[in-house]
This record gives sequence, C-alpha cells and structure tokens, in this order.
Amino acid sequence: MAKDEIPRRAIYRVSIYQRCLQRLKENEVDTVSSQALAKAAGVKPTQLRKDLAYFGQFGTRGLGYDVANLSEVLTEVLGRTRFQPVIIAGIGNLGSALLRYGGFQREGFEIVAGFDVEPNRVRDPDIKTPVYHEDKMVAFIRKHQVKMAILSVPASCAQGVANDMVTGGIQAILNFSPTVLEVPEKVIVNGVDLALELENLSYFIR
Amino acid sequence: MAKDEIPRRAIYRVSIYQRCLQRLKENEVDTVSSQALAKAAGVKPTQLRKDLAYFGQFGTRGLGYDVANLSEVLTEVLGRTRFQPVIIAGIGNLGSALLRYGGFQREGFEIVAGFDVEPNRVRDPDIKTPVYHEDKMVAFIRKHQVKMAILSVPASCAQGVANDMVTGGIQAILNFSPTVLEVPEKVIVNGVDLALELENLSYFIR
Repeated sequence: MAKDEIPRRAIYRVSIYQRCLQRLKENEVDTVSSQALAKAAGVKPTQLRKDLAYFGQFGTRGLGYDVANLSEVLTEVLGRTRFQPVIIAGIGNLGSALLRYGGFQREGFEIVAGFDVEPNRVRDPDIKTPVYHEDKMVAFIRKHQVKMAILSVPASCAQGVANDMVTGGIQAILNFSPTVLEVPEKVIVNGVDLALELENLSYFIR
Repeated sequence: MAKDEIPRRAIYRVSIYQRCLQRLKENEVDTVSSQALAKAAGVKPTQLRKDLAYFGQFGTRGLGYDVANLSEVLTEVLGRTRFQPVIIAGIGNLGSALLRYGGFQREGFEIVAGFDVEPNRVRDPDIKTPVYHEDKMVAFIRKHQVKMAILSVPASCAQGVANDMVTGGIQAILNFSPTVLEVPEKVIVNGVDLALELENLSYFIR
C-alpha cells in the first residue's frame, strides 16, 4: 500500500505499538494478545488490528502476536533503521529546551545544528549543539542533506523561515509556532501548539 | 449539545478559528467568508461550517461571518473568559523550558507552581514560579482547587504522579511523558510526545 493511502493517525499509533513492543521485549515477553497490546497502547483491539492490517498479516488466532517479529516489522515500517539528522530554527526559550531535551536522541534523531537571528546570544552552557546565524541555514541543509527540521521561531516570522527550509530541501517540519504554515504539497508539517493543548483541555473542565 | 458529543478534534479546530479571528480583529477586518477563514485555519470550508454548526448558526449567505460576534461566541465556547491556574510536575529540562515558555501566559493560563522530587536542584534563575517537593502536590491542588496539570516527569514514574494528580482533584492532564496513562474516565489526558512527532514525520520522508 502506498504511504499516502495510510491515515496519518495510524502512523502515530504504530509508533505507540512499537514502544509497547519494545517494553515487552525488555521484559522478556515473547507473545502478546491483541487485547493486551491494544490496552497498553490505549486503543481498542479493533483499531489495533485495522492499523496493523495496512502492513501485512500478523498474529495467530489464540496465540497472539510474536513480539520480536512484529516489532521488527514495525521498525522497518517506521523507517527507524535509518539515522535522521534534524535542524532547529529559533533558539529562544523553547528552542533551547528542545536542544537540551534528551528524548529525540534516544529515539534515533540527532539535532545537528541550531539557527537563530542572534546566534551568539548567551544560552545554557549545557547546549553543545552549534548555533549558527539563520542566513547560513539554507546552505547547511543542502550541504548535509537534512530532511527534517523543527521550527520554534515566533509566529510572526515562522512562514519566512519555513520557506527557507523548503528552499534548502527540508521535507518534514515539526512546527511549534502557533501559526498555520503554507508549504508545497510534498512537504509534511506536524504542529505542536502547547497553548492550544491546554486550551483544548480547559474546554473539558467542569 | 452535550460537551462529550462534540469530537475532541473539533475543539482543537475551534481554538485555531478563534486565533484567526483574533488576528482579523487586530487587523480591523469586520467580516470574513467561510472560504477565507477556513484557508487561514488550514481546513476545508465544509469542515469549518460543520465544526461551527455544533455551537449555533453563524454567518449570512454572501456576507460571511461577523468577526467580532463569532469571536465572542467561540471565546464563550472555549471557556476562555475564565482564568485557569495550572501546575506542573517534573522540573527537569523540559519542565524548566515549559516554565520559561511565555506562550501559556499569553493564552490565559498561569503555571502557579512546579513540583519535583528535587525541588532545590539548581535551575535557571529566570524561573520565578515556586518549585515544591512532590510530596506537597496533592495538598496544593486541593487548597488552590487546581483543575489542570502538566506532567513532564520520566516515563517510569508518570503513572504514579498522575495518580496523585487525580487524587488531588486534577481533571485534565497535558502529558509530555512518552507513556500511556491510565486515569478514571472523568479525567482528560492530552499527550504531547515530541519524539513521536519526529518519528511520525520521518515516516513520510523519501
């Protein structure tokens, strides 16, 4: 099945299944039922089976899934066997935190460089990633063939910086700026809007 | 219509419509067509109309929406007329960044306190929010009737801290820990998993 025929949210869930399988492997569990795996991932068993069906036939009735085998297939699906370099534009408060955040590295992503209009601003000495002037970003992306970027600049300049990223050859942007980006169809944008998340939660409070 | 009959993602989109309307107001635009508002929000016009229909009848054929009026209604819908105090548990790298991040305050949320197993660990002097020992969290939530919490502790202790939050009376959790939380049905959890977002993007890279 072509990549663009699989729903975006199914791919998110595959990542979560994969994490659950990793944990089962660490605990030396060999097989898992679809009920148990679905529960660990916080979805319904029908959802799990539907998601996995995009990628093949897995599991044996009454026996469940082979943990090692399913994990291997999903790693392949997610393309996580490859190492992915990532750049980040906008090294303010949030950008600095993202540079110090260990979670990316653990999952196989390395933030190779940061870009900012004030590259020499005083920052946390714990940040070891080099920070360059934004003018150098396009050339860096081209030279190092970077495909993924994190955008954490103020909303007012997000579109301009995103345009530069696309010019350089970025194919996927994780956008922390609270704004809707216009990008060519071949470029994927995932938005993380922290205030929006809180706003969404506050709606449900009694 | 009851709150739980409206899809979660529709509420996200309402937040985005509201932001677009704010911007139109700042630019002294009085009316906006559903096409233009949908484009600014990055959705299809049919989606916009469907989402708004949950909350009433808006707009006049050929004239579009009254910006001030629609914005007022959506503010009411989102409950943003009320001020919301928020606590945060886990003041490591990510938690510190969230405390320094100005975006929450701008949107009407105030992080009133942080909690950590090491409250006296050396942190950025820019952080003005008080940080207390995690033991004090339940009492604080009760005393100040806090309803919203941010969870940025390591995955291994996320469930335990979430349990304490629920015990205290938290109704909504923004979870940054890469784990699925089990909470009572009345408690809402939104997850933000930064590595998962990158993983999702990397799937789409050619």
